[in-house]
Amino acid sequence: MGEDKYKLIYFNVMARAEPIRLIFAAAGVQYEDYRLEGDNWDTEKTNYPWGKLPVLEINGEVLAESTAICRYLASKFSLVGSTDLEAAKCDEYVDAIMDCRSHWRSYYWESDAAKKEELKNILLNVQVPFYYSKFEKIVEASKGDYLLGTNYTWADLHIAHTVSFIDKTVKPGLLDDYPKLKKFSETVFNIPKVKAWIEKRPKTER
Amino acid sequence: MGEDKYKLIYFNVMARAEPIRLIFAAAGVQYEDYRLEGDNWDTEKTNYPWGKLPVLEINGEVLAESTAICRYLASKFSLVGSTDLEAAKCDEYVDAIMDCRSHWRSYYWESDAAKKEELKNILLNVQVPFYYSKFEKIVEASKGDYLLGTNYTWADLHIAHTVSFIDKTVKPGLLDDYPKLKKFSETVFNIPKVKAWIEKRPKTER
Ligand SMILES: N[C@@H](CCC(=O)N[C@@H](CS)C(=O)NCC(=O)O)C(=O)O
Ligand SMILES: N[C@@H](CCC(=O)N[C@@H](CS)C(=O)NCC(=O)O)C(=O)O
Repeated sequence: MGEDKYKLIYFNVMARAEPIRLIFAAAGVQYEDYRLEGDNWDTEKTNYPWGKLPVLEINGEVLAESTAICRYLASKFSLVGSTDLEAAKCDEYVDAIMDCRSHWRSYYWESDAAKKEELKNILLNVQVPFYYSKFEKIVEASKGDYLLGTNYTWADLHIAHTVSFIDKTVKPGLLDDYPKLKKFSETVFNIPKVKAWIEKRPKTER
Repeated sequence: MGEDKYKLIYFNVMARAEPIRLIFAAAGVQYEDYRLEGDNWDTEKTNYPWGKLPVLEINGEVLAESTAICRYLASKFSLVGSTDLEAAKCDEYVDAIMDCRSHWRSYYWESDAAKKEELKNILLNVQVPFYYSKFEKIVEASKGDYLLGTNYTWADLHIAHTVSFIDKTVKPGLLDDYPKLKKFSETVFNIPKVKAWIEKRPKTER
């Protein structure tokens, strides 16, 4: 059995692909980080199972849906905790942050300025506090530096990234109100292989 | 090791809990199907990790997020295919139908009548055709009765349910335009243990 060959296809942004890239980075596994450029998307999208990205090619086989891709790789690279229930807690935490992220998305892509301002207020005053205060407590209750304890999982990579992504794209400094979550996020970004990736990755707006 | 004790907590509707109930049914595993009634939700919600339901108690441990619960049980009950990639394809398919379902949700819960009509049109003419035509092709390409071939997985249970749920709550007959997906869904509902559950389950509007 040779080495698996991975090609990750996405746009030149962090957005939904960055948790996948962070998993590759943390595991120290090589992959092709293919970033689509140009304006051919409308014709190219028909090449992908759901007309959307990211997509991962694994020895030529195609897997879509960003969270499915994360979990598949995390499982291969032993980043899913050490019991079935820990693997399920990773899933729960990621789905919870994705619920929060879906509110971010409604705000971020709103084109009407007044409506966008309204969505921003709800995001900052209701939705973000709702989820972040819960994650703050989870970090506080942990017996180690990470959500499930002393070893990190893909949920740590995903959540540390997603909260700092929201911070960056909505209101830098937002995480200051959640000191434990902020420190957790910094701890994740200081995992040496993760840190090395963050330092060298393409700098994009989102 | 005794038997695992499961308590599923949700409201008295199908909605996000029914895929979980279908997994229990298909596996023939006992659980407590607890359905909250009454108007105490606003005070009770603080008892749950994310203030939302469904939640599954497993020997007293708490797992939230409907899809995480489905996957955890499916894995326990050997309903995740036979390879890591098949397990990941289950995840991809479920996430894709959940993407479609999120459009359903925007429509279903919209309170402004004109806006609701507009969302219904987009749902029926754009979003549903987008996802359903893709599932129609997946069913067509399968070498067996189910999405991954001759054996069913939790993705089959989830998707068969979700498309018929959308059919029921938006426009009965909708599935007639997708004859293979419709037949697939009927095949799933005819799995004897699934059929028995569907016949005896509480009848609810959604
Ligand atoms: N649930 C999917 C959503 C994928 C998605 O919406 N991708 C966007 C980019 S973030 C896309 O490809 N949009 C282009 C299009 O829809 O044409 C996932 O998480 O992978
Ligand atoms: N992503 C979560 C969402 C859960 C959710 O939104 N549950 C709704 C019912 S379908 C709820 O509990 N709503 C009550 C509330 O938010 O107060 C899941 O799939 O479990």
